[in-house]
Amino acid sequence: MDRDFLQRAIDLASAGVARGEGGPFGALIVCGGQVIAEGWNRVVACTDPTAHAEIVAIRAACARLERFKLDGCILYTSSEPCPMCLSAAYWAGVQRIVFASPRAAAAAIGFCDDDLYCELALPQEARSIPTQHLPLPGSDAPLRAWSDNPDRVKY
Amino acid sequence: MDRDFLQRAIDLASAGVARGEGGPFGALIVCGGQVIAEGWNRVVACTDPTAHAEIVAIRAACARLERFKLDGCILYTSSEPCPMCLSAAYWAGVQRIVFASPRAAAAAIGFCDDDLYCELALPQEARSIPTQHLPLPGSDAPLRAWSDNPDRVKY
Repeated sequence: MDRDFLQRAIDLASAGVARGEGGPFGALIVCGGQVIAEGWNRVVACTDPTAHAEIVAIRAACARLERFKLDGCILYTSSEPCPMCLSAAYWAGVQRIVFASPRAAAAAIGFCDDDLYCELALPQEARSIPTQHLPLPGSDAPLRAWSDNPDRVKY
Repeated sequence: MDRDFLQRAIDLASAGVARGEGGPFGALIVCGGQVIAEGWNRVVACTDPTAHAEIVAIRAACARLERFKLDGCILYTSSEPCPMCLSAAYWAGVQRIVFASPRAAAAAIGFCDDDLYCELALPQEARSIPTQHLPLPGSDAPLRAWSDNPDRVKY
């Protein structure tokens, strides 16, 4: 089963490349042996840097299931997820992740996924995008308002 | 200027909480002193686990500018970006990031951003979501097809 779903993710990647929609990556969300959603990289087609295959598939699965958690779902992806997509899988709470090509294969054709993992592990002041912590007096107000609301929805 | 834009991000966070649309987070994309796009957390309203304030703002800015890179743009965000949002900022290539509340403030009210940074730094086999590398014979075919295409669009 894993092999069939993973092959489908690879096929989606190939189809996306053939259409020139973005990078060579495809993904599926599967629940109970059923494909809930498919995705492929559409960064170029959608002019959206977040439209990676896994993000597209996760968003489509959540839209279809009308919930923001993918408990019990498996993410199949043609290549090892970048940190953005891996984090999205955590926020979605998928049960398991299966991927085919390792990040080194994407790095070999010029994708920066591996560099990005290194970058995230650096202390803030060492990162390549300058990042500034600017405390403002009221910055915790929304956090407190959320925390104090007994009807808040956790995610 | 930084303070004004950052305060606007905090105000967006508060407004989003008041409407119950998601977590207490807001963000702006600014270019040349102009606000290009605003975002706030809409995870609950959109049943989309990727609808963090920064992702919403980055997607909206790219849609508005009709490009998948945000060169020369600044990301202002009410709280320190989670790894998903920080990675999205890298993929978008923003020039600079400014945030108000540190990740510890979000952790104090139950958000897992800080844990997620730790999780991503772990080797794959130590992570809490089981992740399997399953090599398939044709898994590099889409990568090769992309790399061999002289008309490919890099991002």
